[in-house]
Amino acid sequence: MAAKEAAIDEIKALGFSRFLPEVHKKKGKPPGTIHYTGKERKEEATIDIIDYTKISLEEKSTKKVEDAFPYKDKKSVTWINVNGVHDISILEKLGANLGLHPLILEDIANVNQRPKVEDYDKTIFVVLKMLAYNEKTKAVHGEQLGLILQKNTVVSFQEQEGDVFNPVRERIRKGRKVIRSSGSDYLLYALIDGVVDHYFSVLEKVGEGIEELEKELITRPQTKTQADMYRIKRELILLRKSVWPLREVIGSLHRNEMKIISKQTKPYFRDTYDHTIQVIDTIETFRDLLSGMLDSYLSAISNKMNETMKVLTIIATVFIPLTFIAGIYGMNFEFMPELKIWWFYPLVWLVMIVLVGFMLFYFRRKRWI
Amino acid sequence: MAAKEAAIDEIKALGFSRFLPEVHKKKGKPPGTIHYTGKERKEEATIDIIDYTKISLEEKSTKKVEDAFPYKDKKSVTWINVNGVHDISILEKLGANLGLHPLILEDIANVNQRPKVEDYDKTIFVVLKMLAYNEKTKAVHGEQLGLILQKNTVVSFQEQEGDVFNPVRERIRKGRKVIRSSGSDYLLYALIDGVVDHYFSVLEKVGEGIEELEKELITRPQTKTQADMYRIKRELILLRKSVWPLREVIGSLHRNEMKIISKQTKPYFRDTYDHTIQVIDTIETFRDLLSGMLDSYLSAISNKMNETMKVLTIIATVFIPLTFIAGIYGMNFEFMPELKIWWFYPLVWLVMIVLVGFMLFYFRRKRWI
Amino acid sequence: MAAKEAAIDEIKALGFSRFLPEVHKKKGKPPGTIHYTGKERKEEATIDIIDYTKISLEEKSTKKVEDAFPYKDKKSVTWINVNGVHDISILEKLGANLGLHPLILEDIANVNQRPKVEDYDKTIFVVLKMLAYNEKTKAVHGEQLGLILQKNTVVSFQEQEGDVFNPVRERIRKGRKVIRSSGSDYLLYALIDGVVDHYFSVLEKVGEGIEELEKELITRPQTKTQADMYRIKRELILLRKSVWPLREVIGSLHRNEMKIISKQTKPYFRDTYDHTIQVIDTIETFRDLLSGMLDSYLSAISNKMNETMKVLTIIATVFIPLTFIAGIYGMNFEFMPELKIWWFYPLVWLVMIVLVGFMLFYFRRKRWI
Amino acid sequence: MAAKEAAIDEIKALGFSRFLPEVHKKKGKPPGTIHYTGKERKEEATIDIIDYTKISLEEKSTKKVEDAFPYKDKKSVTWINVNGVHDISILEKLGANLGLHPLILEDIANVNQRPKVEDYDKTIFVVLKMLAYNEKTKAVHGEQLGLILQKNTVVSFQEQEGDVFNPVRERIRKGRKVIRSSGSDYLLYALIDGVVDHYFSVLEKVGEGIEELEKELITRPQTKTQADMYRIKRELILLRKSVWPLREVIGSLHRNEMKIISKQTKPYFRDTYDHTIQVIDTIETFRDLLSGMLDSYLSAISNKMNETMKVLTIIATVFIPLTFIAGIYGMNFEFMPELKIWWFYPLVWLVMIVLVGFMLFYFRRKRWI
Amino acid sequence: MAAKEAAIDEIKALGFSRFLPEVHKKKGKPPGTIHYTGKERKEEATIDIIDYTKISLEEKSTKKVEDAFPYKDKKSVTWINVNGVHDISILEKLGANLGLHPLILEDIANVNQRPKVEDYDKTIFVVLKMLAYNEKTKAVHGEQLGLILQKNTVVSFQEQEGDVFNPVRERIRKGRKVIRSSGSDYLLYALIDGVVDHYFSVLEKVGEGIEELEKELITRPQTKTQADMYRIKRELILLRKSVWPLREVIGSLHRNEMKIISKQTKPYFRDTYDHTIQVIDTIETFRDLLSGMLDSYLSAISNKMNETMKVLTIIATVFIPLTFIAGIYGMNFEFMPELKIWWFYPLVWLVMIVLVGFMLFYFRRKRWI
Repeated sequence: MAAKEAAIDEIKALGFSRFLPEVHKKKGKPPGTIHYTGKERKEEATIDIIDYTKISLEEKSTKKVEDAFPYKDKKSVTWINVNGVHDISILEKLGANLGLHPLILEDIANVNQRPKVEDYDKTIFVVLKMLAYNEKTKAVHGEQLGLILQKNTVVSFQEQEGDVFNPVRERIRKGRKVIRSSGSDYLLYALIDGVVDHYFSVLEKVGEGIEELEKELITRPQTKTQADMYRIKRELILLRKSVWPLREVIGSLHRNEMKIISKQTKPYFRDTYDHTIQVIDTIETFRDLLSGMLDSYLSAISNKMNETMKVLTIIATVFIPLTFIAGIYGMNFEFMPELKIWWFYPLVWLVMIVLVGFMLFYFRRKRWI
Repeated sequence: MAAKEAAIDEIKALGFSRFLPEVHKKKGKPPGTIHYTGKERKEEATIDIIDYTKISLEEKSTKKVEDAFPYKDKKSVTWINVNGVHDISILEKLGANLGLHPLILEDIANVNQRPKVEDYDKTIFVVLKMLAYNEKTKAVHGEQLGLILQKNTVVSFQEQEGDVFNPVRERIRKGRKVIRSSGSDYLLYALIDGVVDHYFSVLEKVGEGIEELEKELITRPQTKTQADMYRIKRELILLRKSVWPLREVIGSLHRNEMKIISKQTKPYFRDTYDHTIQVIDTIETFRDLLSGMLDSYLSAISNKMNETMKVLTIIATVFIPLTFIAGIYGMNFEFMPELKIWWFYPLVWLVMIVLVGFMLFYFRRKRWI
Repeated sequence: MAAKEAAIDEIKALGFSRFLPEVHKKKGKPPGTIHYTGKERKEEATIDIIDYTKISLEEKSTKKVEDAFPYKDKKSVTWINVNGVHDISILEKLGANLGLHPLILEDIANVNQRPKVEDYDKTIFVVLKMLAYNEKTKAVHGEQLGLILQKNTVVSFQEQEGDVFNPVRERIRKGRKVIRSSGSDYLLYALIDGVVDHYFSVLEKVGEGIEELEKELITRPQTKTQADMYRIKRELILLRKSVWPLREVIGSLHRNEMKIISKQTKPYFRDTYDHTIQVIDTIETFRDLLSGMLDSYLSAISNKMNETMKVLTIIATVFIPLTFIAGIYGMNFEFMPELKIWWFYPLVWLVMIVLVGFMLFYFRRKRWI
Repeated sequence: MAAKEAAIDEIKALGFSRFLPEVHKKKGKPPGTIHYTGKERKEEATIDIIDYTKISLEEKSTKKVEDAFPYKDKKSVTWINVNGVHDISILEKLGANLGLHPLILEDIANVNQRPKVEDYDKTIFVVLKMLAYNEKTKAVHGEQLGLILQKNTVVSFQEQEGDVFNPVRERIRKGRKVIRSSGSDYLLYALIDGVVDHYFSVLEKVGEGIEELEKELITRPQTKTQADMYRIKRELILLRKSVWPLREVIGSLHRNEMKIISKQTKPYFRDTYDHTIQVIDTIETFRDLLSGMLDSYLSAISNKMNETMKVLTIIATVFIPLTFIAGIYGMNFEFMPELKIWWFYPLVWLVMIVLVGFMLFYFRRKRWI
Repeated sequence: MAAKEAAIDEIKALGFSRFLPEVHKKKGKPPGTIHYTGKERKEEATIDIIDYTKISLEEKSTKKVEDAFPYKDKKSVTWINVNGVHDISILEKLGANLGLHPLILEDIANVNQRPKVEDYDKTIFVVLKMLAYNEKTKAVHGEQLGLILQKNTVVSFQEQEGDVFNPVRERIRKGRKVIRSSGSDYLLYALIDGVVDHYFSVLEKVGEGIEELEKELITRPQTKTQADMYRIKRELILLRKSVWPLREVIGSLHRNEMKIISKQTKPYFRDTYDHTIQVIDTIETFRDLLSGMLDSYLSAISNKMNETMKVLTIIATVFIPLTFIAGIYGMNFEFMPELKIWWFYPLVWLVMIVLVGFMLFYFRRKRWI
């Protein structure tokens, strides 16, 4: 009973609501209203600013959004990373400063967006899902990432502080040639690439889970194994839903004629596009494999059931007639001449043995034993 | 029995006919004949008129369609909301006043249209489905909404008075900047957006139903649970049928070169398009989840059945041979030497115990127990 | 036995051959050979001619095809309706008179064509299926309709006289404004629209059949119910096959740049196109619903089976051990000390009762009862 | 046992290898190497030449390929039909004479090509599958047909002599107007049309097989019926594989701007295209019907099984408790007071009858009987 | 137990990891970082150089990449084959010498790429999978092949030395006319064609496996047969995943306007494209056939199970009532008048025989026996 309550809690905590968009929370509000739709958060939003050129580098961490404004007109590339989109005032001020369309701000705060890219001439707005694998619940969780690309500026909006972008930060700090000498479009690429690369870790974890199950299936299949297969199948539905639209998003980044993305950066986006396709391919393969495992598990179960039935049939078919014969001579009629004949008892035994022999022969021929 | 009759009544009331288009009601009438095909209604149709500019606002509620005519040539934006399309005369008069194509009027009155958009140069005609979730019957119901966009005028035709548009009305009344300073195309957007936003509430209700079922599945699955799964599956078929064509409709509004829709309004339509995609995505995810739940329910049922069979087999296989042995020595032959031997009775017990032990060992090895 | 023969007869009469194209009947003949491939017909073919302008109207019914020739060069719109394409000579003469391509004539006579539209510059040739629902056999039957559109002339070829076009005739006779003042392209539209409208009646009948089944499923499911579900599924396959290509046909009529179809008529074709989509949508929905019903029927059956098994298991599991105990003390050994002890008989009863109690408790805990 | 060996032989003879392309036979050879990959053949290849204009006709049958060379520069239409592509030398000489690309010759000899059309400017190369139905094995066999179209010349390459082209020959001989007065492109059409028309005969045979099965299903379903359904399903996979690419092939012939195909001939190719679509449609319909039949067969089987189980359950449930009661009073305890009471025996009978009555009532209520 | 451990080892060795892309190994590294992701290899990488014109031929095998540099500016066609991409330094040096984009080098070293083609103006980069069938494990293994095409130069990167290219080498050595007188684009074609041709051998092996299974299915189906079907199904998933993207790759090579590929070579790429389609077709057909085999196996199993149940039912149904009758007269009541009547014992026998006869008749009518 306690186990069941725990299971329900688990569903509540991580289960179904992950699949439900919650746009309705803003229902009735006019479009352009900035309204946070994610989990309630208490921590204050923070802002990390990195401003760099080929030769200079400036880093700053702040809680006042106004600190980011001076970088706007600089020629250096500025990356403004906002951790926490639940603080609407930051979005509003930054939006006003950068001249963002109200719908962009609305979409950043509404963390249940489908991945998409929108081209507002001087601004490109990208929405992605960052995925994380929770080792304990063995569930995949998604977090929304909003990205704004303008000339010389990239703004990234995360729901909470994370470590997916640390490698990019490292590369900027270490003064890697390509990233430091490229524009903001390359920085956008670097961030998206970081997110997509991270998908592979999640896939790897899920893949390990499937491999684990496969071993279990061979050594000792149990009812739990089957439940686990359905659980992973479900995670794959969630994964698929998060990743599938990405194909279109990144595809349009490397194909389309967006002026703000330079010709030098396009091959990099194509590379990320290839990775996305690979992620999708792998998810599909996982689904196929899992279906195959389920089929083969179900057929194993059904084979076992058939074997059980066969044993029952053989035992019953052999003994039921014998018991009947014994029953006959257990009757108490006074006039049963056979009972007086001394060789009738051995004869009954003989008949029984012959009967059994015949049945076994028949089953053999039917290939039942 | 009564329960069954109630079930049939329920089917009649909400069930199947929702899936049947009823265009045939007008069969044989020439095209352009305005013919109402919805449920019979007794209440009189009413007309709400809102006329506004950035600075002025006029509201009127009437039952005389002629009251709407004077607004036609004004430069202000006029929204004429007709509640009740069963009053053909209103349609005819309004159609004549606005110069609508007879096919438009026919489609407004025929409330079984598929969602669509039609561009008649100076008039854009949109058909949508408004959905509502009936808490009691747990069924989704659809109602047709016809929208006419002309320069400075939007006309909306509902089957009955509803509250989906109240937020839009509020925004106009409160003098919200965007809606009051935009044209009729923005008003059209606001109405469509209201309808699509409402879908999320319906989805949320359906989602809650699925979550409920999931809990039931884990704690105490019953035959009713399964019937409920099929019921929800069916609602999803209806939902899908209503929402799927919307993708195309709104997609063509934000992409196409309709002169009447201004460049400023297009991003808003794109936003609504994204919401539509999200609705469709969610419906598909619900279908996948429901299929998964059904599979896992069926496999749970089949596991239980197998367990039952195993118990039967073990009991039968163990006791049938023992009963046979007992039957043998229950025979009444006069010449059964064993019966006279004092140690034969304990021996029979021993044989039986050994037999049981052997069988249990065999079952253990077969992993049946 | 008789029932089975009747069933076979039924299959022969209406069943399978409806699915088989019979183009092979003309195998080996050169293309352009006019060869009738439908059922044998004895009645003579008749020709109905209606010739009209805005102000004039002339009707004629004849068996001589030559009567239709004089209308060719008139400026009025002429509708020539041929009932019976088995009379090849009529086709040949009319074809020669109107200058039709031999392949058109071949396709008219070969009544197993797939719906299609062909544009021969000055002639447009359309093939449709007219569907009818046979109340007695509950089967859908199709008949081919060939339509020729030329400037001022429409020719329609039916396999036999039917009543689908009566409403169109009525409208012409009554002098309805639109049809009488439009050209031959509008007449073509009116005929096609009549056919598509008729599909809804067929769908309605099929829908009623499904609704009937659904009620049966809830009140008293029987083996026949299942057979009926498969039968309707089959009808839907046939329907789908007839209607699906229509989408393309009518779509190309309203989109393509065929000179002969005027701009005024195109919106009407778009309307018919919408109806076609709705027909297809409804067929798909019916398929989905039927699949759902089948699944839910099968699961009901399987639930019943499981319940049966459970009862068997419980009865057998409870009584088999008891019967064994009774068997033990039914043995006739002379040296069975228990038989002499007076409290052993009640003890056996006690043991049995405890055993039953324990088993019932165990089953309860396993939730089997 | 013999039956099984025969079954294996059958598989070897006609079964699996039909599905395996055998391109590997030429593995490692350079492209353009002409290498025959079909069955070994002993008969010598023959060449039929028909050369005609509107007024003249010349026929020749030879084994020397050089006899075909003089026709090359004539203005008359020449049809060279090669029976047997295993004679590589003929291919090489003819290829050299007509200036064919080495890849064309390779594809003609490699009889496992997928249907395709290739446009080499002055030469059009078409590969088709000719299908034949083997009445004895009830299997569909395919043979490759290569067609070369050049100005005034058509060359056809068959694996062996066949009769599919006889009707075309007849039409040329009889001086039919269209074929004799058209160019080589019309001849190409006539040959392709002959092949596609022949598909209908094969479909008809397969259709008859399905109809046969359907009758069997209704009158006396057997295990063999099911095996036959799987066999036909398999034939349909093969058919589908052969015909599906044809759609694209013939579609590109009637759409594309190949200079060599005149405007007059295009409508004829469109006609053949329609036939191809119809063939594909019919195959799909057969697949759907067969799936329906299989489903309905399986459900019939499962209904029977359930009935069996029900009978077992009723018999066992009724008699097991009765047998237990009889067992009780068969025990030999000395102190069983009931045994001495004269009305106890009739009482036992009464109890048994009441018990049976109650059970039958219970089963009736559960609708088991 | 040992068998199971072996099975797990097998999975580890060849099973699951083949399906998992391992891009994550480079996670966090900046794009353009060359990082080998394949199996660890100890052997040193080797380089084979073949340089040829129509009249000259030079072959060299070396371990120093610098030996390849002088050929760069020659007008002769140079083929540089690198065996072993785990030696990053070779990639870097060669990349610098040929002016390759860093992303190309990254993709060559990362051996988990999806097949693709990339056009960098003066360089075309192709990634393929070479497949091999392991006779012992009956598994398909893939190895990545990177190909670089520049004017006069082709570079191929294999993971290890292989023999797929030997036929191409032979053709160059033997001075075959076409290959020696064509440019580097033809060489690229020859290499790709070699890889695709090799797929047919793999398919042939898989096909043999399926044929083997089919024979097993007919002669003596066992549980292992089923497991093997699932195993092959899995191999087909892997194969499909490797080959499917190839369609697009080679399709774009023969269609696209890549300047570097001459018009003469395009028909050859089209030929390879046809082969690829055939490979994909065959894989799909194998999947269909395997599904058919599985279905027919499962139905055979279920038929057997039904037969078993039938036998059990008949035996039980016949003997349970008889045993009950015998049980009745085995009771020890003192007052059982029948026991004293001499003709009652034969009567019981008669009743039993009549009962059996009736039951057999009933079963016959139900067609159970």
